[in-house]
Amino acid sequence: MTTTTEQLEQLTDAAAAAPVWRAAHAAERAAWLRAAADALDANAEELVVIADEESRLGETRLRGEVGRTSGQLRLFAAVIEEGAYLEIIVDDAEPAATPPRPELRRSLTGVGPVAVSSASNFPFAFSVAGGDTASALAAGNPVIVKAHSGHPRLSARTAKIVIEALTAAGGPVGSLALIEVREAGNALVQHPVIQAAGFTGSLGGGRALFDLASGRPDPIPFYGELGSINPVVITQAALDARADSLAQGLVASFTLGVGQFCTKPGVVFIPSGSGFEALVAAGLAEVSGGRLLTDRITESFPTDVAHLEGEPTTAVVGVGRAAPDGAARSIVLSVDASAVAANPGVLLKEVFGPATLLVRYEGQDDLLRALEAVPGSLTATLHSEHADDASTLDEVLAVLERRAGRVLFDGWPTGVAVTWSQHHGGPWPATTSLHTSVGATAIRRFLRPIVFQDAPERLLPAHLRDDALASLPHRRNGALQLP
Amino acid sequence: MTTTTEQLEQLTDAAAAAPVWRAAHAAERAAWLRAAADALDANAEELVVIADEESRLGETRLRGEVGRTSGQLRLFAAVIEEGAYLEIIVDDAEPAATPPRPELRRSLTGVGPVAVSSASNFPFAFSVAGGDTASALAAGNPVIVKAHSGHPRLSARTAKIVIEALTAAGGPVGSLALIEVREAGNALVQHPVIQAAGFTGSLGGGRALFDLASGRPDPIPFYGELGSINPVVITQAALDARADSLAQGLVASFTLGVGQFCTKPGVVFIPSGSGFEALVAAGLAEVSGGRLLTDRITESFPTDVAHLEGEPTTAVVGVGRAAPDGAARSIVLSVDASAVAANPGVLLKEVFGPATLLVRYEGQDDLLRALEAVPGSLTATLHSEHADDASTLDEVLAVLERRAGRVLFDGWPTGVAVTWSQHHGGPWPATTSLHTSVGATAIRRFLRPIVFQDAPERLLPAHLRDDALASLPHRRNGALQLP
Repeated sequence: MTTTTEQLEQLTDAAAAAPVWRAAHAAERAAWLRAAADALDANAEELVVIADEESRLGETRLRGEVGRTSGQLRLFAAVIEEGAYLEIIVDDAEPAATPPRPELRRSLTGVGPVAVSSASNFPFAFSVAGGDTASALAAGNPVIVKAHSGHPRLSARTAKIVIEALTAAGGPVGSLALIEVREAGNALVQHPVIQAAGFTGSLGGGRALFDLASGRPDPIPFYGELGSINPVVITQAALDARADSLAQGLVASFTLGVGQFCTKPGVVFIPSGSGFEALVAAGLAEVSGGRLLTDRITESFPTDVAHLEGEPTTAVVGVGRAAPDGAARSIVLSVDASAVAANPGVLLKEVFGPATLLVRYEGQDDLLRALEAVPGSLTATLHSEHADDASTLDEVLAVLERRAGRVLFDGWPTGVAVTWSQHHGGPWPATTSLHTSVGATAIRRFLRPIVFQDAPERLLPAHLRDDALASLPHRRNGALQLP
Repeated sequence: MTTTTEQLEQLTDAAAAAPVWRAAHAAERAAWLRAAADALDANAEELVVIADEESRLGETRLRGEVGRTSGQLRLFAAVIEEGAYLEIIVDDAEPAATPPRPELRRSLTGVGPVAVSSASNFPFAFSVAGGDTASALAAGNPVIVKAHSGHPRLSARTAKIVIEALTAAGGPVGSLALIEVREAGNALVQHPVIQAAGFTGSLGGGRALFDLASGRPDPIPFYGELGSINPVVITQAALDARADSLAQGLVASFTLGVGQFCTKPGVVFIPSGSGFEALVAAGLAEVSGGRLLTDRITESFPTDVAHLEGEPTTAVVGVGRAAPDGAARSIVLSVDASAVAANPGVLLKEVFGPATLLVRYEGQDDLLRALEAVPGSLTATLHSEHADDASTLDEVLAVLERRAGRVLFDGWPTGVAVTWSQHHGGPWPATTSLHTSVGATAIRRFLRPIVFQDAPERLLPAHLRDDALASLPHRRNGALQLP
């Protein structure tokens, strides 16, 4: 892989911008992030039109996504202004200890320039100015984004708006750059200037980049979100209490955004002989299909569905309305839990698009055996009732907790709130790290600890001096302190 | 790589112990850790004798190291009892928000069984019951240790004592296991039961294990500490003020423990023409050599020194006292900064043992160019005086901060206090991650986030229920709360 002259210039600019971002006071960095957020909001109408032309996701959804994206930038501005993300720990010197202890002042600092590969399914929130970019900038790092080929014009326009806003607010040249060539992603994660990478996309593409990042002479952290089957377990008691609303909820969730959410429920465990299949089929029959995001997905969805249909153990439960030419038709299949446990590699492979698999279980042991075969996921869902035995549910939860980063109850996994508490991550292949890509703690991915020992005050970073500590959450001599 | 029947049994036991450790209350886990600490202290005299026979490190140093190791276990007991390590974040539901927000309760939980490869140079503190093991257990994970071939009898005896103590305190079978075959380390990091690995050792060995861990079908985090040159910069003003004590301090630091600390100062930048070389040579002439830890190091040290001596740009500044047969003789070499900048791959390669390299710089630019060539290190040290210009020092610090995890002033890097604030890590190859292997925050390596959405209280983990939150540091609806 080689880099073009233009890309080399972008990398050089990012390297030069890195110390400026790292050294900038929190208030300054927060102002830059808010300037980017304001610029997105101010240009929302123009951006939404381009985004809809390229992604077919609809203006209502896309307008909401712009708000989510600017809101995300503002959340990270608040995160860095508060300062707990610095994880400051101070231990005063103890000259009388054996051996004598020096003064140590620890905090987190930016890792350096970050490469971000954007996703097709969120052209704003997981793209040029999305969560990876916002958290990397907030952590004090310049960002180079590889544009997604699914929305090239939107990527270019968004980058121009955000770069101009950052510059107008006083940010350095090189704060953000866009690379538009598909192959450039590989060269980017291998380039010595790049110190970490964020990625949302397919297992195949993500694994390839992960291997390149890990295979460098100096490996860098690669934060990838690579795919998720998002298991749902429904108990008999839950079906007894609310089968109709469960069927409606499931159909709405797995067909939302034409089934192209990374938290789409892709496998649903139901008691055998419950008749739930018919309810789902009836609900699905009313649902119209839609066009998928890209040509690649348009090709892969029917192929992936055909693979599932071709398995001797599966049956089609129902389909959505006949879709217009080029659009995807939603589908639900079913299979027995014992078949899933025997053949998880095929039956529990993520299908990106509006498909889900109902898995019939014959009691707790059958259920647990099949759940053990579920690959790492972003989410796992349990629908139960108070009438269910708690220790029986605990056995199910013990498996779900090992399989997913977010365990949810009596709801549906699509919809990921951008909050302080959110965790959007999970065991491989859901993500490649022990971190989240959504929510306030996503910032931790692009920070590294550094400790100063016995530093003269004039040489300490400003935020580690005693006068600054008074207004920052920190730990001192073992005790947590709030401002 | 294959696993033996005994190793398979150990892995099965660890897998069975994992949910018990993960679910154990903090008080219970803390009691297990303290039982291990007490057992080490109670058997210290016997252990020290074996350790000295195998490591030649001397009983005084080894007795201190047992105290450090049991102290480390007790620090982690305190860490988990306090509970901030759980990083609990709760956001209450906001049904009126657009879209409505669910309740989310986030905390960290153990990743699962951890493999630890122990080091030769700290037969207690970085071995069977050392920092990796203590932090992995504290995080709620069983541990399988690969014994270091440099102290096999000590490893076996320590493991027996700790395992018995854990069992007597009520810990499950499989909490800790020891694997004694050298090749087993490879199979261990590749085994599906193992969810993370800790390692302290050579760049070559560490890189090989890192590649195996990253190359798994489901890659796992590999926390390696692989080598560090630990640059020291001395200004002219510092030499003017205290050249004698700097020379004594340097000699004491780089020959401590026969130069076998991972924080040994391996390269020292001094102003050209300062005459500091003669002071170091005079001090070194009084220093006796010592036997190195293992046959491998005994072989590699003179070879590595010969490589440095063979470079046309280097000169020998001085040597220690003639060493008895089989012992290492300390040595200091010197070179110009321009040569280092031109040939860092050879001149800045870590030499494990009592050797250091004085690098003469001709002013600030010459210094900065050479510093840019220094590989990632655990520490970087600046010796300066108030008379030095702050902005000149800031330029030097800007480079040192990017090169190291601990920046220290007017001291020496050997000696790593086990505290809340410590950071023992740094850019590759110092470590393979953005984490520390020493100090309270080392626990974060073996934890992953999990969030519960809209969970009925009876199905929530105990520490996330409202009544438990009152006594745990946490964040709720954005605001930090202390008990």
